This record gives sequence, structure tokens and C-alpha cells, in this order.
Amino acid sequence: MLDFELALMRALVHAGLAPQTAADELAGASDASALDIGAIGRSSGEKGTPVPGLLSALRERVGEIAAAHLHQGATSQDVVDTAVMLIARRSLSPVLDDLAGAADACATLAQANRDALEPGRTLLQQALPLTFGLKAAGWLAALDTVRSELSYQRDHLLAIQLGGAVGTLASLGDQGLAIAADMADQLGLVEPDLPWHTNRLRPAQLASSLAITLGALAKIARDVVLLAQSEVGEVAESGGAGRGGSSTMPHKRNQVSAVAVLACAERAPGLAATVLGAMAQEHERAAGAWQAESEPLRELLRLTGSAAVSAREMLTGLTVDHARMRANLDLNGQLLMSESVAVALAQSIGRARAQDLVEQATRQSVDDGRPLREVLLELPEVADGLGPERLDEALDPARYLGVTAELIDRTIEAHGSPRG
Amino acid sequence: MLDFELALMRALVHAGLAPQTAADELAGASDASALDIGAIGRSSGEKGTPVPGLLSALRERVGEIAAAHLHQGATSQDVVDTAVMLIARRSLSPVLDDLAGAADACATLAQANRDALEPGRTLLQQALPLTFGLKAAGWLAALDTVRSELSYQRDHLLAIQLGGAVGTLASLGDQGLAIAADMADQLGLVEPDLPWHTNRLRPAQLASSLAITLGALAKIARDVVLLAQSEVGEVAESGGAGRGGSSTMPHKRNQVSAVAVLACAERAPGLAATVLGAMAQEHERAAGAWQAESEPLRELLRLTGSAAVSAREMLTGLTVDHARMRANLDLNGQLLMSESVAVALAQSIGRARAQDLVEQATRQSVDDGRPLREVLLELPEVADGLGPERLDEALDPARYLGVTAELIDRTIEAHGSPRG
Amino acid sequence: MLDFELALMRALVHAGLAPQTAADELAGASDASALDIGAIGRSSGEKGTPVPGLLSALRERVGEIAAAHLHQGATSQDVVDTAVMLIARRSLSPVLDDLAGAADACATLAQANRDALEPGRTLLQQALPLTFGLKAAGWLAALDTVRSELSYQRDHLLAIQLGGAVGTLASLGDQGLAIAADMADQLGLVEPDLPWHTNRLRPAQLASSLAITLGALAKIARDVVLLAQSEVGEVAESGGAGRGGSSTMPHKRNQVSAVAVLACAERAPGLAATVLGAMAQEHERAAGAWQAESEPLRELLRLTGSAAVSAREMLTGLTVDHARMRANLDLNGQLLMSESVAVALAQSIGRARAQDLVEQATRQSVDDGRPLREVLLELPEVADGLGPERLDEALDPARYLGVTAELIDRTIEAHGSPRG
Amino acid sequence: MLDFELALMRALVHAGLAPQTAADELAGASDASALDIGAIGRSSGEKGTPVPGLLSALRERVGEIAAAHLHQGATSQDVVDTAVMLIARRSLSPVLDDLAGAADACATLAQANRDALEPGRTLLQQALPLTFGLKAAGWLAALDTVRSELSYQRDHLLAIQLGGAVGTLASLGDQGLAIAADMADQLGLVEPDLPWHTNRLRPAQLASSLAITLGALAKIARDVVLLAQSEVGEVAESGGAGRGGSSTMPHKRNQVSAVAVLACAERAPGLAATVLGAMAQEHERAAGAWQAESEPLRELLRLTGSAAVSAREMLTGLTVDHARMRANLDLNGQLLMSESVAVALAQSIGRARAQDLVEQATRQSVDDGRPLREVLLELPEVADGLGPERLDEALDPARYLGVTAELIDRTIEAHGSPRG
Repeated sequence: MLDFELALMRALVHAGLAPQTAADELAGASDASALDIGAIGRSSGEKGTPVPGLLSALRERVGEIAAAHLHQGATSQDVVDTAVMLIARRSLSPVLDDLAGAADACATLAQANRDALEPGRTLLQQALPLTFGLKAAGWLAALDTVRSELSYQRDHLLAIQLGGAVGTLASLGDQGLAIAADMADQLGLVEPDLPWHTNRLRPAQLASSLAITLGALAKIARDVVLLAQSEVGEVAESGGAGRGGSSTMPHKRNQVSAVAVLACAERAPGLAATVLGAMAQEHERAAGAWQAESEPLRELLRLTGSAAVSAREMLTGLTVDHARMRANLDLNGQLLMSESVAVALAQSIGRARAQDLVEQATRQSVDDGRPLREVLLELPEVADGLGPERLDEALDPARYLGVTAELIDRTIEAHGSPRG
Repeated sequence: MLDFELALMRALVHAGLAPQTAADELAGASDASALDIGAIGRSSGEKGTPVPGLLSALRERVGEIAAAHLHQGATSQDVVDTAVMLIARRSLSPVLDDLAGAADACATLAQANRDALEPGRTLLQQALPLTFGLKAAGWLAALDTVRSELSYQRDHLLAIQLGGAVGTLASLGDQGLAIAADMADQLGLVEPDLPWHTNRLRPAQLASSLAITLGALAKIARDVVLLAQSEVGEVAESGGAGRGGSSTMPHKRNQVSAVAVLACAERAPGLAATVLGAMAQEHERAAGAWQAESEPLRELLRLTGSAAVSAREMLTGLTVDHARMRANLDLNGQLLMSESVAVALAQSIGRARAQDLVEQATRQSVDDGRPLREVLLELPEVADGLGPERLDEALDPARYLGVTAELIDRTIEAHGSPRG
Repeated sequence: MLDFELALMRALVHAGLAPQTAADELAGASDASALDIGAIGRSSGEKGTPVPGLLSALRERVGEIAAAHLHQGATSQDVVDTAVMLIARRSLSPVLDDLAGAADACATLAQANRDALEPGRTLLQQALPLTFGLKAAGWLAALDTVRSELSYQRDHLLAIQLGGAVGTLASLGDQGLAIAADMADQLGLVEPDLPWHTNRLRPAQLASSLAITLGALAKIARDVVLLAQSEVGEVAESGGAGRGGSSTMPHKRNQVSAVAVLACAERAPGLAATVLGAMAQEHERAAGAWQAESEPLRELLRLTGSAAVSAREMLTGLTVDHARMRANLDLNGQLLMSESVAVALAQSIGRARAQDLVEQATRQSVDDGRPLREVLLELPEVADGLGPERLDEALDPARYLGVTAELIDRTIEAHGSPRG
Repeated sequence: MLDFELALMRALVHAGLAPQTAADELAGASDASALDIGAIGRSSGEKGTPVPGLLSALRERVGEIAAAHLHQGATSQDVVDTAVMLIARRSLSPVLDDLAGAADACATLAQANRDALEPGRTLLQQALPLTFGLKAAGWLAALDTVRSELSYQRDHLLAIQLGGAVGTLASLGDQGLAIAADMADQLGLVEPDLPWHTNRLRPAQLASSLAITLGALAKIARDVVLLAQSEVGEVAESGGAGRGGSSTMPHKRNQVSAVAVLACAERAPGLAATVLGAMAQEHERAAGAWQAESEPLRELLRLTGSAAVSAREMLTGLTVDHARMRANLDLNGQLLMSESVAVALAQSIGRARAQDLVEQATRQSVDDGRPLREVLLELPEVADGLGPERLDEALDPARYLGVTAELIDRTIEAHGSPRG
């Protein structure tokens, strides 16, 4: 808010509407730590906005000329909206940095584990094999998309607010737009085409993008928590001293960072909904909806920042257990490979008949408790049409990965490109 | 879903994985109206997805070869996700058309009422004058922004889904990506870098943009409802025969379209929150979150479409009452112009002293029930420093509109540019 | 959290599981202001919960025996859940007090304005007359319902949490339930049938009730803001010195309290949705959902408290302008009374014919710009069947109020009953 | 809606305001299947409510007298609100029946598995042993609470709406309340103290309770999905023919019912938030918020009904695998029992020292890959202070269950009590 008032004063000086001394005096008095925040808070309760209290406090600390020109042409909402945009701008830089770190960690995981077989799981049931590298590539793709979106918003969406009481900038005569442009330049924010006092696309877009970012992080954290279950054990956060451990339950390895990400993300939809629900603002300043917006927005910024830090920690320190992955893949014997056998068999006997045969063999294998391979080789269509060697190939998970390698390459390559 | 299966079959044919007859047979059987929707629905309850029931129904209607190749390489989610994207693509065209019509109507209103004075209102209290043209320009700017966003999403975000059970496209060997590209081309959707089975940025972004569109429409509708209040009467929807009237209360003019817009928009934040909240999807297919997504998404598409139609009707038929606007502006005599007088007076006696003087005069005017002009002219600073003529200029709302004209021009001009 | 640990220690002493000195030592060290909150916060980041840090801090400040027994049998979630319940219990008392004050103010308004005619409004259009007393009675009924609900929850829903790591209270042997009962008694909370670590009905019910309370307050505040519009002017918040005024726009009377209520309430649905959405908690302690619950719950408590204070201020100081109410009622001449005339006329000529006649007369009155009474008296059915005197009665809003008086009486009487 | 109109007509007859023939004629014409729903829908678009179209359709099908008295005294919202309440009343009975079935199944599971040991899990990590019976008892307690709440709401919250245009019942003279009471009696709904056109506590409370019910069901379904994971395998839904199976992946056992419950519940918070957010309704009828309420409410009723059916199926057919439970419990050797050993040891050497010793032994056991028992017995404090026999007792999960049995008994007993 101080930055707003100072930029406004300087713009007034540039426009010839205030003397240079006014800006100098205000600059000298713009030390947030010297303000009585409690008093401003109490006045905020009285007035419904902190701005009058802030202005009083500043006027006490500057000379008459600065006092007279302070806040000239602006309305309280101009100050608060611009302040929120500045907070967003400053918050997004570390967020983007942490997201880049998290994405880099995903790229490393995707590359390092590109051949690490594990069961792919649908509805939490093992389905077909994939590699952990592909899973990490999926995480990477999501992170790179949200990074690109947040970065775009930081540079193109975050705008100054300056409209005066009803958006006409009436008290600045014909210099309103020049002053707005000057302030945008000073503050590193976009100059909007129109004041957006009750046109709340900017807050709504920002809130949505933050919620989407948190959702993308939560997907990764959910996977980590599930993969780290005692009974699954495929990954774990790196412990660090005492981190996530329990003195009374030494076997536990709580995934502290992943849980933190999930806890942050759980709150995002409700907060975003509040900002989206506040868009129908009355006339030139809303009675309630506007005032309800800034806390959820700032909370979303805080939660995104916190989740990005945790996600980066989680991903950079993730330990991967290839042996457990393989053991889990073999949990149901070779049943996971039945589709692969059917595909191989289809070449000689057609797709429909191949599926039928394999389905019967699979059932028999389960009922008799015998290996699928053994049951299959008793079938003439398999023994003759496919033979043991090609059957073994069909039963090898490493040979039934489709376009896994291309997908990993594609994603890592895109990550390396300039937008990364 | 039929379009998906047919495009897949054709792509299989192109790739040499299925014979041409399979595609021909399927094309001949792909008549949605001939399917037993009830049976597919019942099977959906059993299986948790409508796809197996649909495939059974199709297999009964095609020959053996088409039956064998039907759905080859795909998983149920591939079908459902692509179907939702196709629904979105088809829904967005009429939505964009109606939004364009609504925006054009705003541009007309902004131009036609650029000088139509009315009170600007903050917290539902009259604040300073503006023109109805500026209010309409604000509506226009919001509509043009959401149009641009939705149009971008239609062309760049809506993507095919094809990944097979766990996103590796394993059963299509090394041809998975070629087939996906072929299908995207056939269906007019984007080909994604990776299958997005549990990377739900697309649904989340679409849901957010639809909710933001509804929010932008709701802001306009709220203004209309408030301006049309019996006690305000500045605008009204065009009646049409019996529209919005009440047989028992003939004086009422319900703003049927505006209320419809508000009712649609009221539901958007909750629906968007559901889609945002469903992003943390487990592994390669979610257990619940994915299945919860498509109804809210389709509901948002329906509500946006409905609200866009209503908004267009509301705006194209809006009647504007300049006399009531002026009467409302004069409701508090000249009090609304006190800031303007202070600005004028500041040139001679400084901003601080001018504000004090005008504040005192205003209070006295209210207390004594005398016109502000009269009270002001008794002050030597006004009588001498400003004089009656310049005081009258300062009291004229039409001269205290700041950059209103530039803002209107800017917005209409941007609307006329190619992105409109 | 300190209260929890102290109550637990005392219960351990009562059960013979810890010596009296342990409780005495802990009591001596339980001064929240002496704790290093920053250090506990940092540890919370490490461990994912503030409890281990709190326990370390306490252990440093007590002797060995107290240190050994501190927190015995409890898990971190026991502490946090109980602490939130204690916060709720303590918060609800002032909330209930302010709601009682607000309800009393409504009762006074209902009584004092029981005959104050104003237009009833539907879809923001004048519809039929009612009295402001009836409107206030509607507010009162809502407040008394939410008071009753919140009061019930305070006394019957807010429960202690004590289950140990997985809800079995294993480390307390067979004394777990006795200790839980003892603690509930000490802390003034309910003893639950079962630990509710992942059975989150209590937080969800509390969050819902708080959101409903905020919704009920928002309905009142919305009415006040609308009635206080410059063009309506039927009520206004009492100003107080400078309250809601604007130095540059002296004619404005911002409804600061009403706007504050609306701003608080706007956030409630999103916060409640977060708590509702966090109910599906995994196994014996959730990975994320539980951790996300307490901030929204505390925020809802804070917002409800703040809105209750504002609502009480708004209602106790509300000024009512009977003259404006009557003027607004007469805005459309006697058109508002057409239904009343039709009802009166129906007694002689039947309902259908009466409605037709009045509808025609009303239209003619509007078209010709003549008073409805005059037009009606030209109709033989009215002149003869009703006569001028009974027509005047039918045109008198004060005689067309149906059961208004009974409804007001009923509500005031219910308010006076014990549950008030 | 037909039931409303018919009950109103009968009440008018009872009150002497309409002749008996009017009610007889209307009763004869009240066959919903004979109405042109499409035409009513189109009229609804015109008028903003389906009621005028319905009334027109009815008037065409009855004689003049019934037509004249049809809907007398009512407003459209009276019809729609009462209709939603009737839908709720009729929906809640099967919901309550299915919830009772689900609760009974939980009681059976709790009893049958009261001693079935499995690992208790916190943050998805094994923590301490419990029994599956206790887990089922926790589910049961939640179901019994929501049943009690929904049952209360059905009987005490669902109310008739009758207020006429602005809630005064003006056109019914002094008989409005008698007619409302009569209708409530006919329709089996509560008679409210006041019309609740813009006092939306009833819809908000109903929506919240339904969302809470869905949340309680989702907690159970989440546990089932997690317990049924390929790598955990402790429970499974009963398959039935083809249910949840996959022709191409025969090893999969999708938990179709559990996933269906989760999918329904995922939508609840957003829908409840919409109803909560619609509470701030303007004056005597809202412009948008009211119109937005009924679809989410009906959707919540539908989702709750659907989830209750699925939950009942899931729970009544749940198969439980005690061997897998025990195997999972033994996954980490005896590490899960370290807290138990520390508790046992504390009796001789104090709690602090016991915890230290066990922690060291546990770490050594992990580092050396030796059984915890072996390491512990090398410590003199254990060998002498506890001895092998009492150590074995301390290492036995079945002896470290605290108050598990009492909690199960308590919950089953409460379920058997009248409220069940």
C-alpha cells in the first residue's frame, strides 16, 4: 500500500500535479515498520477498509504539502487492489523458482528411472506394467504446464488499479491515464485498458491458476503417498534427521512433504470458489464481494508457495526402490501380462479368438494355482502358433511398454526448451 | 463416444492394424439413435462406466472383423475423456456466438449512451457521476476477455485422450502415437504430448474458464437487476408478450433474462470447485475423482450456454431511461458534485483547504436544507476565487467525467479489432 | 494444547498411572506466553505437526517425572483435535451472545414497525405491500433458529479426542476410557463413544452450522444494504462519528456493518466445502485431509464471530424512515393494490372475471396515465358491485396485509420463549 | 407441484373459499403423465418458472370453477419450494433404508471381525495393530449418526411453503394460516412458523446433512479401496458375474461400488457450497439465488441415494481376508510392537528409560537385520526385568489392543438401540 501511494505521488509530480517535495517527503516517511499497525487495524474496523487509517498515519508523518497531495485521485480500492497485485507478483517469483526445481527433479527421475518397471495401477488395482520414468514424466508435464501458465499471468495479468471513486479518474482531469501508465511502469505491473473495480477477471484467473497449480502438485504427492505405503514401498521421501519419524513407532516413515502438499491443495478448491463466487460485483464498487476476495487470494498464494517448497523437497530427495517395484509387479505371477500374450497371439489366430483363449487360460491358471506360462503352453494355439520363445517375450513386461520411451523423451525434451 | 470408436477404427485401418471392412461396418452401425440407451445405462451401473455396454451393443450390430478390432488399444477412459472434449468443442461454438452477440450489444450501448449521465454507485450508495456508456464499456471489456480465453481454449486445450490401460499404448506396439495423431486430426481436437488420464489440467482449466465466463455475465446481470429496481428504473429488459409480467401484479417487470443469468452463475463456483478438487487423481486411473468430473463439466457447459443466450437477449433488448438516470443523479441535489468543487477550488487555495471548505459547506447545506451552490457562494473563497460561472461548471456532472470518453473509445476500439 | 496435556496428566494421576508431582510440575510450566512459539513453528514444518515441538518445549521446563509422563497414551491428533474443539467452545459463547443481541434488536424492530407499510419486493421489483415489522420478524426467526442450533452443538457436539496412535488407546491398558471421561469432564467437552480421528462428522457439522449462521446473517445484511440504497432510503445504519462517511463524498452513508457481514459470509461456503470435502479420511489418520481442516474451521469461527458483532451493531442502531417507505409504496400510484381490488371484486363477480376486469383497468390506467381508482369506478361492476367506499378499502395497503400481524406475534412470542 | 395445487384446492374447500366441485375436478385432472412437459418447459424459459405453464395446462383440463380457484392465494415459489420438500421427503425414505442396511452390515462386520488383527495405519504407514472389527465399528458409528440426523430432518425440517407473493398470504384474508396448516397435514410436511421464501435455513440444512452423509460414506469407501489394493488385499467387494472385472486384465478386481460411492461424494462439497452460498436472498424473493438452489439440492438427494445403494452393496458383500491382514501386520517383523514393549518395560525401569532402550534396540534390529526379540533379549533390562515370557506377551499384537473390545461393544449396542 505504501508502494502504491509513493508511486502515485511520483506520478503526480511527473504530471505536474504535485511538487517534487511532496514525493520526497513521502519517500522519507514510507517505512512500514514505523507505522502503528494496530491503530490502522482499529480504524479499518470503523471504516471498512484500512486505507483511511493508513493515510492518517502517513499524514502525521509528512509535511503539509505531501499531506495535501497524498492519495490524490485515488480511491481506497485502488490501493488495496494494487497491493494485492504486488503481493502476487512478489510471491510468484519464489513459487516459480520452486516449481522449476520440482520440475527439474521430475526430469531427473524420469531419465534415471526410464526403464524401472513397476505395475501401472488403475482404480488402485494393478493393471499393466509401465516404468517409473513414465510416471515421473507425467508429473513433469503437469508442472511445466502450470509453470508456463503462472509465468504468463505474472507478466501479463497482474495489473495496477487506478480509477478513483467510480472509475472515471475525474479528479485528475485529463491526466488520469498518463498517471496510471506512469504508476504501472514504476510498480512493474500491467496498465489495464479500464479500471477493473468490479470487473474481477484478474483475481478470478489468478485464483484459478493457483488452484490448478495446487491440484497438479497434489496429484504428484498423492502418488508418492500411495507408492510409499508400508505394503507398497516403491518410493520414500529422504528422511533427514528425525524428519517424519516417530519416537514411539520407529518403523514409520511419514511422508511429511507429500502430506504437506496434500494438506495445502485440499484447501484450494474452496478458496478458488470464493474468489469465483465474488465476481458478480455491484455497480462501481461491491458491497461485500470485493471485501471478501483478498484473504482467499493471499491464502492461495501462501498455500501455493508452501506446497511448491514441499514438493521440491519431496521430489529432489525421493528414493526409489527398484526391487520393491519389481516384486510388486510379480505379485500376481504373470497375470499382468495376459493382455500382452493376447496381442502376440492375435497375429496368428485373430484378435477375438486370442482374447478368448487367454482369458480361459488365465482363469485356469488362477483356479489351479499353476503358472500362466505352463497353462498356456498346453494349448496347441500357443505351443505351435507362438512357441515358448515368443511366449516368453510376450510375458516379459519390459517388452510390453508401447510408446513409453517416446513419451519420456518428448516430455524431457519439452522441459529443456526455453519455456522451462 | 461413437465418434471416438469410429475415428479409432479408421486410424487402425490407416496404420494397417485393421482391415478397411472393419471401419466400413462400424460406420454403418454408428447411429446413436438405434442404440438401447437404457441397456447401456444398466450395464454402466454394473461396470462403473458406460463403455463396455456401448461396445457390446456395437459388437452385436457389426460383423466379426469389426467386432474384433473395435476399441483396439483403447481404455474406457480414453472414450469418455475424448467424448467430453468433443462435447466441449461443440458447445463452445454457440456459446462464443452468443457472447459475441452480447458483446456487440454492449458496444452499441456504450456508444449510444456515452454521454448518458447517471450516478456511479459504490457500496450501493451514489458516489460520483459517470455515464451509462462507461458502465456498458466495462461490461464489454469483460466479455471480450472471456471470449478470447474461451476461444483460445477451444482451439488449443481440447485434446484427444488415447493411452490404453496405463498410458503406454502398449497393445498398439510402436504405432500408438501415429494413431493418436490420426484420431486428433479426424476429430478436430489437439494431440496431447502425453496421455492425460490422471493429469487433469485440461478439465480444470476448462471448468475455471467457464466459471469465470459465468462470473463476468453475472456482473452484468446484477447491474441490470439493480438498475431495473422499481425505485431506480434506469434500464429494463424489453418485455415481449407477457415476458416477465405477472397477471396479478401488472406493475411488475421481472428481469427474466438477468435473473436467469444470475441463477446459472450462482452454480458455477461450486461446480468448478468440484472439478478443481478432483485433480489429485491416483496413479494411472483415479478411484472416484475422475468419475466425478464429467457431470460438473457438462453442467458448466450447459449453464454457460444458457446464460450466454439470456445475456444476449437481455443486452440486445435493453431499454435505457435517460430521464430516470438524470433524476437519480439529482436526488441529493448537488451533493454529488462536492468533490468536483473541491478540485476546482484547490487551484486557488490548495487541496487541503479546499476540501475542508467544501466539507463544511456540504454539511451546512444538508443541515439547513439549502442548495449547495447557494451556501458555497456565501464563502469569499468561492465567490472571489472561483466565481459563479466556474462554480456552475464545477457543479455540472457532465464536466466531471475524467477520462470517461477515452475509456469508452479504447474499449470499443479493442472490441472492433480482430480478436472480437 | 496446553489445556489438553494438563488435563491428560491429571487424569493419569487420578488413574494411578502418574504421580501427583507430574501434574503439579506441568501445571507450573503451563504458561503459553513463556513458550518459544517460533521454535515450535519451525519444528512443525519438520514434523508436520506442532505437537512434538510443544512437547519438547514443555519437557525442558518440567522435571524428569513430568517429562516422562507428559502426553502418555496420546497421539498428536488427540491434542490438535481437542484444541480445536476447545477453541470452538470458547468462541461460540461470545458468538451466541452477539446473536442474542442481534435477535433482540430484530424483535424490537418487529414490534416497533409492525404497522410500518413498505413495498414487498420480489426479484427486486415492488410486488405487494407488507410491513417492515414482518420483514424484521423474518430476520428474527432465522436468527433464533441458528442460535438454537449453535447452542445445541456447543453443548452436545464438541467432544474431546483421545485415541492414541490408532484409536485403541493401547498404551493406557484398560484405563483408556476412564481417562477420556475424566478429561472430558475437566475440559467441559463431550466424551465421544469412539475416537473420531477419521470420522469427521463433528468438524463437518460445526462448519456447516457456522456457514448457515453466516448465511442467515447475510440475508439480513443484504436486505439492509438494499433498503439503504440512495434511491430507496428506507433504513440506514446509525452513523456514529465518521463511521461509513467519506470525506470527499459527504452525501454517502456507507453501510459499514452490513458490508462487513456480507464480506464475512461470502467466504463461508468455500470454507465449509473444504471441511466437508476433507471427510473421506484414510484409515486411522489421514494423509492431508485432516491437516487441511483446522484452518478453515478456525476461520469460520472467526468470521462468524466478526459477522455477529457487526450484525448486532447494524441492527441495534438501525434507523427506519417510515416516510420513505410510504413514498416508495406510492411510487406506482395504486397499481400495487390491483390484486387487492380483484380479491374484493371476486366476491360479487367471481375470481376469474374479477381478475380480467382489474387487469384491463390497470393497463388502461397505465396507458392513459390516469389513477387506477378513477378508471375502476367507470366500470359498472366496480361502481355498483363494490362502490367507492369498499373500493377505497381495497386500495388501502394497510387493509391488505393478510396474516402479517399473526406472523409477527408468533415470531416475537417464540423468541421470548426459553430457547431465546 | 400437482400435489401442492391439489392440497391447496382441498384446503380452500375446507375453508369455504372454493366449492367442492373445484377440488373434484382438479383431482380428476391431476395426472402428471397427461401433461405436455415440453410446453411447460418452454413457458418456463419465458416466465422464469414452470408454474404459470403448469397452471395454464391444468386450466385447460378442468372446468371454469376449478380454473378460477386454482392456485388461489399462492405464488410460484410456494409451489416449487413445497415440491422440492416433497421430493426430499420421498427420497429420504429409501436413503434411510439403504443406510440402515449398510449400518447393519457394518455391525455384522464389526462383530465377526472383532478379533481379526490388521495393521492400523496413519498417514498410510503402518502404525500399531488394531482389529478390523474396530475399523468396522468406526464406520458403523458414523452411519448411525447420519441416519439419526437425516431421519430427524425428514420428520422436523421438511416444511410446506405457503406465503403468497410477499409472505403475507394477503389474498386469503384471515384464513391463510389455517389453509397452510391444512396443507401441511395433507402433504405430510411440517407447518412452518413463517413463510421461508428468503429464509433459506431449510435447504441449507438439508444440503449440509446430505453432504455430511456422503462424506461419511466416502470415508468407508476410501478405506475399502485402500484395503483392496493389489498390494494390500485385506478386503474385496464380492464380485458377482463380471462385476468389476476386466476382460483384458483378468487379475483386476475393481471395487466398483466403492468407486461409485467416492464419485458421488466427490461432488457433494461443491453442491452444498452452492446451496449455502445462495442463502443471502433479497427481500421477499431472490433474483437468482433462489432459482439456483433446487437443482443442486435434487442432485444431492440423487447422489446420496445412489451412494447409499452402492455402500450397502459394498458392505453386505465385503469379503475379508484374515490371512492377508496378518501377513501385512507381520510385514515389518515385530517393529510394530516396539511401543508395546516400551510400555511393558516402563513398569520396571520408568517410561523415559524404557522408550530410549526400545528405540535403540529397534534401530539396531533394523540395521543388523535381526529380529527385534533377539536384540531385546540381549539387554539385561529386558532379559532380567521382563523375561522372555513377558516379552513375548508384549510382542503379541493381540495383547496390545487397549479398549478395542469395549469400543466395539459400545458401538454395536448403540446401533441396536431404538434410534437404529
